[in-house]
Amino acid sequence: MYDLIIVGAGPAGLSAAVYGRRAGFELLVMEQFPMGGGQVVNTSEVDNYLGLPGVGGFELGQKFRSHAQELGASFQRGRVVAVRDEGDRKIVETAEGAQYEARAVILAGGAEHAKLGVPGEDTYRGQGVSYCATCDGAFFKKRDVAVVGGGDVAVEDAVYLARFCRKVFLIHRRDSLRAAKSLQEKLFSFDNVEVIWDSVVEEIRGTDVVEGISIRRLKEEREEELSVEGVFIAVGMRPNTEAYRELLACDGNGYLVAGEDCKTSIPGIFAAGDIRTKELRQIVTAVSDGACAVAAAERYLAQILQ
Amino acid sequence: MYDLIIVGAGPAGLSAAVYGRRAGFELLVMEQFPMGGGQVVNTSEVDNYLGLPGVGGFELGQKFRSHAQELGASFQRGRVVAVRDEGDRKIVETAEGAQYEARAVILAGGAEHAKLGVPGEDTYRGQGVSYCATCDGAFFKKRDVAVVGGGDVAVEDAVYLARFCRKVFLIHRRDSLRAAKSLQEKLFSFDNVEVIWDSVVEEIRGTDVVEGISIRRLKEEREEELSVEGVFIAVGMRPNTEAYRELLACDGNGYLVAGEDCKTSIPGIFAAGDIRTKELRQIVTAVSDGACAVAAAERYLAQILQ
Repeated sequence: MYDLIIVGAGPAGLSAAVYGRRAGFELLVMEQFPMGGGQVVNTSEVDNYLGLPGVGGFELGQKFRSHAQELGASFQRGRVVAVRDEGDRKIVETAEGAQYEARAVILAGGAEHAKLGVPGEDTYRGQGVSYCATCDGAFFKKRDVAVVGGGDVAVEDAVYLARFCRKVFLIHRRDSLRAAKSLQEKLFSFDNVEVIWDSVVEEIRGTDVVEGISIRRLKEEREEELSVEGVFIAVGMRPNTEAYRELLACDGNGYLVAGEDCKTSIPGIFAAGDIRTKELRQIVTAVSDGACAVAAAERYLAQILQ
Repeated sequence: MYDLIIVGAGPAGLSAAVYGRRAGFELLVMEQFPMGGGQVVNTSEVDNYLGLPGVGGFELGQKFRSHAQELGASFQRGRVVAVRDEGDRKIVETAEGAQYEARAVILAGGAEHAKLGVPGEDTYRGQGVSYCATCDGAFFKKRDVAVVGGGDVAVEDAVYLARFCRKVFLIHRRDSLRAAKSLQEKLFSFDNVEVIWDSVVEEIRGTDVVEGISIRRLKEEREEELSVEGVFIAVGMRPNTEAYRELLACDGNGYLVAGEDCKTSIPGIFAAGDIRTKELRQIVTAVSDGACAVAAAERYLAQILQ
């Protein structure tokens, strides 16, 4: 019986491991993939984690993991398929058929960016293909880029990029944007933004890095080539919450409902990082959640252990 | 006219500078002291900032500052005494008589440890008087020390010190502790801890360094001398909000009322880090706030600049 099981070994889970170990908890970090580390390890460069400018994503993930390991965190591979709540005892079940018990659980399994599913998307990920303008936009100053999507995030990304990129194409499959009107007005105020309506990306092309995209104009049924060095895909996020949707309250997009204190709808189960309802999903906000979730778990454990 | 003025150069302010610069904002960081960096620079070692285990506090502060500087943040010395709200224009005034204008302001001036306000407290600061057991406790191995306070932090400090100090007096003005029950149980498990109830410190005495304290037992109205070499003061935090209390909503303890999105009671003015209402005041939560405040400022600026 652990004090704490942390599901997920990204920035939120590893920060929780650091804070949990320093609080003296016996804890286990469950990770789906060997030497996990979350989305960050697939990022080419991270320049917004304060104190470590221009660090490689993989390197940053390793630093995070080493820190947790140095403090004595144990890791266990396994894909978590369910958490059972038996009050003071939580049972974590894996697809591999194993069970682990703890007094409290922090769910930090993150979220994944929805993919376009087109050729070149995986090949050039981190080499021009990005799912986060805030993270990677600064690498494309004075370059031509494309944003794919039509929601708030896509339009926010386009506005963000338009401030310093030379040209921003916004490619949307429909003839109107779902994004908030105020955002749209802002978007249309930029001379260097061109919205390409009723169009989808068919392929992302390049050599070592992205050099362009092939788009199909749906109404005219015609192919077109665009020369861009960056492609920002903003067609939604998919939180890794399938295993918890019956147990815990989720919002309409599947995120676990939890505030800054990381408390879910069940006492003793906490949600940290991209997996929970929040406005800004960044490495620093995930790391912060890890600390907050442990603080909440400490209070919970102090209560049940009396 | 700047896009953004950030008041404070601790982890929250510097993280905001990093996010703000990456978002393309012209911004100014105001700092009260030359080469500021917040409370962290006075900390001997930090071991809970994910990715940088066991780093010196001063070194960490320098890393934070360098990061913001590398991205082109400008710094300006000045003690901010007021912020004026003129809608789309905010004016920041300093004690030195200077004025700076921006479209949005992030207040990140942090908080300070509350003082006892007794003779000797300032005289012996750093010579036996400390506000951080984790930082300075190691200097008092096998010595007798006093901790002043009755909340979680005071009891945590006493527990921390009891592990290696010869004797720990916990001096509390009331007859019961506010600290969590589990913490209290831990405290009472140490033979070398003596709680002195209903008592206040009247003076901290010494020659070059602390040699003892005078306490007054409130119920018996009697003075008493205790021979200690260290005094750890844990009587709360005081947010640096004097300049904003008329303008912005504050809670009962003087913190700026703001949630995870860092929005204060006035549009375009944001609060990040220890200065705002929050449960956990740590470097990682401050750094996270810096990012969230900039995201909120971006949305605000997109709106007003239409």
